[in-house]
Amino acid sequence: MGTEVQQTEQWAEIAPDAARRLVVAAVQAFAERGYHATTTRDIAGRAGMSPAALYIHYKTKEELLFQISSVGHRLSLGILQEAAAGEGTPAERLATAVRSFVRWHAQRHTTARVVQYELGALGEEHYAEIVALRREVDRTVRSIIQDGVATGDFDVPDIPGTTLAVLSLCIDVARWFTADGRRTPDEVGELYADLVLRMVTAPRQP
Amino acid sequence: MGTEVQQTEQWAEIAPDAARRLVVAAVQAFAERGYHATTTRDIAGRAGMSPAALYIHYKTKEELLFQISSVGHRLSLGILQEAAAGEGTPAERLATAVRSFVRWHAQRHTTARVVQYELGALGEEHYAEIVALRREVDRTVRSIIQDGVATGDFDVPDIPGTTLAVLSLCIDVARWFTADGRRTPDEVGELYADLVLRMVTAPRQP
Repeated sequence: MGTEVQQTEQWAEIAPDAARRLVVAAVQAFAERGYHATTTRDIAGRAGMSPAALYIHYKTKEELLFQISSVGHRLSLGILQEAAAGEGTPAERLATAVRSFVRWHAQRHTTARVVQYELGALGEEHYAEIVALRREVDRTVRSIIQDGVATGDFDVPDIPGTTLAVLSLCIDVARWFTADGRRTPDEVGELYADLVLRMVTAPRQP
Repeated sequence: MGTEVQQTEQWAEIAPDAARRLVVAAVQAFAERGYHATTTRDIAGRAGMSPAALYIHYKTKEELLFQISSVGHRLSLGILQEAAAGEGTPAERLATAVRSFVRWHAQRHTTARVVQYELGALGEEHYAEIVALRREVDRTVRSIIQDGVATGDFDVPDIPGTTLAVLSLCIDVARWFTADGRRTPDEVGELYADLVLRMVTAPRQP
């Protein structure tokens, strides 16, 4: 876990330092044992703090999970929006989106797993906020695919289904990626950009 | 969860009936709360049994997880092997493999999530057995892709990477699929078979 981009820029927006340390500790604890098996006492202990000190920053364990999920979703949405708004053809923008979304899920696989697998533990209002961000993620990728269909560069019979599949393929990198595996995040990003462009381009007729 | 193919044929091979009821209860408990937050007492209670009665069939919680993982992996491997050994061109066999592997992960999404997300909770020897089954899953899909490359039907620059991506795409169906969503397991299978065939076929030159 030490190789994951985590302690530094990933949570840079969270202040003060004690709140950031609690988030880092919570991600590790949730990833190792699951949300429900983790107590606020465990998290405080990992962060070298007392349960009372944790309570100053987060009233509940669910608030911590929401903070993690919210920052995680907003960062990954930002990456996709930047790719969608960039220069270039739809194919170039889709390739950039896939490359950077994959890299994010590979480099931050521990965070991404917590974010993806513990959605059901969020409270109702927090869940609704995260679902809104996820709709925006979907809309952003769909818009690039729609652009490519409009220009005639892409051939996509089922745009919502293909959008779902592209996002699913990238998100699942968080499940199987390990830092000691045979591919770097950049290499997986390259491979996946090529596979996704194949998905949206009409196959050669045999 | 009532719509999931679970109570009946999924665990048909597990006998006696009490052991099968414990497996069904364990899958539900692990899916809801995670492996580490679930006790053998919770599982026995869900199955309408005493902890002592559970102990007759499974000495530890980890034995239950291994049974679930082992049956799940062998069933899904069987599906792929049947598709690989079937009649037809490599494209037809790959489409059949994807359709049935996707259907399996959609219909049994609760089981599949437990199987995929709690691998790290297996003991060392059990983990090694499951890894061997996963290698066989990979080898089976890779062999169909290799056949298609050999016949010239497929154009695949990176066979291991493409195999990984195809399996990842299908497995992640278990994460996002819900029985009340807009697509049936068969419809997702059809969509994914088409997308995977596009991945392995040379794109049309623009």
